Amino acid sequence: MIFNPEKNSCHENRMERLSAIIKKKAFKSLIILKDENIFYLTGFYGKNSGSLLLITSGKIYLLVNFIYFEQAKRHVLPEKINIIEYSKNKYKKLIEILEGHDCDLIGIEGKSINSTDYLNLKNLLVKRGKKLKGTVGTVEGLRVIKDEIEISNIRKACKITDNVFTEMIESGLAFLDGETETTLALKIEKNLIKGGAEGRSFDMVIANNEGSSMPHYISSHKNIKDGLLLMDFGCRYNNYLSDITRTIFLKKFKSLDKFRKIYDIVLQAQKLSIENCKEGITGKDLDSTVRRFIKNNGLGENYRHGLGHGVGLEIHEDPTVSVGQENILKENMIVTLEPGIYIENTGGIRIEDMVLVKKNCCEILYSSIKDIIILK
Amino acid sequence: MIFNPEKNSCHENRMERLSAIIKKKAFKSLIILKDENIFYLTGFYGKNSGSLLLITSGKIYLLVNFIYFEQAKRHVLPEKINIIEYSKNKYKKLIEILEGHDCDLIGIEGKSINSTDYLNLKNLLVKRGKKLKGTVGTVEGLRVIKDEIEISNIRKACKITDNVFTEMIESGLAFLDGETETTLALKIEKNLIKGGAEGRSFDMVIANNEGSSMPHYISSHKNIKDGLLLMDFGCRYNNYLSDITRTIFLKKFKSLDKFRKIYDIVLQAQKLSIENCKEGITGKDLDSTVRRFIKNNGLGENYRHGLGHGVGLEIHEDPTVSVGQENILKENMIVTLEPGIYIENTGGIRIEDMVLVKKNCCEILYSSIKDIIILK
Repeated sequence: MIFNPEKNSCHENRMERLSAIIKKKAFKSLIILKDENIFYLTGFYGKNSGSLLLITSGKIYLLVNFIYFEQAKRHVLPEKINIIEYSKNKYKKLIEILEGHDCDLIGIEGKSINSTDYLNLKNLLVKRGKKLKGTVGTVEGLRVIKDEIEISNIRKACKITDNVFTEMIESGLAFLDGETETTLALKIEKNLIKGGAEGRSFDMVIANNEGSSMPHYISSHKNIKDGLLLMDFGCRYNNYLSDITRTIFLKKFKSLDKFRKIYDIVLQAQKLSIENCKEGITGKDLDSTVRRFIKNNGLGENYRHGLGHGVGLEIHEDPTVSVGQENILKENMIVTLEPGIYIENTGGIRIEDMVLVKKNCCEILYSSIKDIIILK
Repeated sequence: MIFNPEKNSCHENRMERLSAIIKKKAFKSLIILKDENIFYLTGFYGKNSGSLLLITSGKIYLLVNFIYFEQAKRHVLPEKINIIEYSKNKYKKLIEILEGHDCDLIGIEGKSINSTDYLNLKNLLVKRGKKLKGTVGTVEGLRVIKDEIEISNIRKACKITDNVFTEMIESGLAFLDGETETTLALKIEKNLIKGGAEGRSFDMVIANNEGSSMPHYISSHKNIKDGLLLMDFGCRYNNYLSDITRTIFLKKFKSLDKFRKIYDIVLQAQKLSIENCKEGITGKDLDSTVRRFIKNNGLGENYRHGLGHGVGLEIHEDPTVSVGQENILKENMIVTLEPGIYIENTGGIRIEDMVLVKKNCCEILYSSIKDIIILK
């Protein structure tokens, strides 16, 4: 996690855009609790640290638990942020600060505070003549369009991921020798780190044969056997994430012909999603193009999850590309495109890329092979 | 994650104890959202799966996203649980189910639902003549005392962790050769998995020299150098967690004598905590015994975090052993005891064990050496 002080200006810029949004809203103060949003605005990433960013009357305060104070001092970039440590109760400290500011209606990230804390804080504020109101997606609304530095970090995360997959395929079956699903996940993570990543971006899905029929399968201690191997993984680079899925075939297995046909349908569906992904299309329209194609191939019942999701600081973030999503894709959004077909108790195929949305097309952020691979 | 069907009875037992608690409360229905609580009661662990367990009028429903339906069917143990899949909105499905039940006041885990979802659900229920009320710690109140199967799983997680640390020390400097903080973390995880664990229990703190002065330091890509090496790690076994910290010395470094003295104080403090840890003592009294000792040694300002926390399905759970915690320790609670002394920008020493609280003493769940280790 090395930060370049030159990047400071991008944080200032983000904060200014946020201030402009706040000014338009009924509330003049905003409490930000989501760690990724705080990182986006300040450069400090205290994962699960219980930090709180308060923007009020032209002042900005970052409240961090004393355990993270040293880290926050090192990492916060915009100079105008006042870093304040708290020892137990950040809301007590928050109220002390708010007392000195003229703000009646205070916005708070409604999905990042639990209901118990929200109701307690609301009561404390009401006693002081202030109102609290939950807001949703304010900072996420900025984050959905990636800026230059973000795109560069995500490109790098994808490149590292690409290299690891390609090396794996070039090594052939030797790479898998003696590995279980769990140890293979670790071997992949080690290679991601060797390649420059900070670590994995999520708990990988390394699923062999019947495990691959469950989209969110948890890798087991079983030795990897001939058949299907679905690998859904990614890495973290400067806190930005990558996400890729490839499904490969290992030697021969009895359902090879069946799954070869399924593979072909998934691949065509995935390519169709790429062809249609560009500025202006809604999440639901892009999704339904692919869904219709799979349905027309008689496998509609076997593809039930969404087509894709945004990726950035979070592995699942806006925009969602799925049924009922009216949101319109715009230039410099980054999404996954990942149709899959799953046969219960037998196996599944999923192919996933991350793409950068452009005006008239999209750019695939991976170059890893997608044609069918049978390791022998 | 292999479950033994014989364990079924423990889930039935837990559910019965919970039902007895619910009966005593004003509400007769309870909505459980925390994944660990759902696992504790059902045997199904859908981490971040958005599952919901509803206990109402003698019936139990588990609502899972369709992606997890196959997993839930495989893992849910008590037969009387109705497993229901939802595709997008679990609260819509929940309301459908509640319509068929006579319950006016419904309890919900207030800290496991965000404020936006809570207020939306509350509104939907109000329209149907029902009330929603947040509750805190209902299932956690059961989980705080570990039952036989839980203790056995935690013992195993600690044993695996113990073995990995001991092997590491026996291998000496060779184990660290060429490793960075990040790759060492991965090497430790690989050994934990080899030893039978499912994986790490949290993002390890592997901190060399000045990094160790930050209790929640994030491991870097720096090569490990002579000096201090603080390792805070653990593993997951049958979803139960372990947590250990040891700080060792690598070869010579200029502050060796200073940190040797600090090590001695931390070690004495940690042993003092073990001597005093038994049924009947409050979290705050146990904490203050240790805090006073460190203060008397002139380093009170350098030990600011709590003495310990419960560990089980969550890495931080009840009971908390810290300033202001009035909770009384009881037999079969499991807590960490982990004093530390930190010198800003220089380094820190922490020694952490997990212990099982007994009537008149506590049992240390590790046998890893705690005396000072200088690898040469």
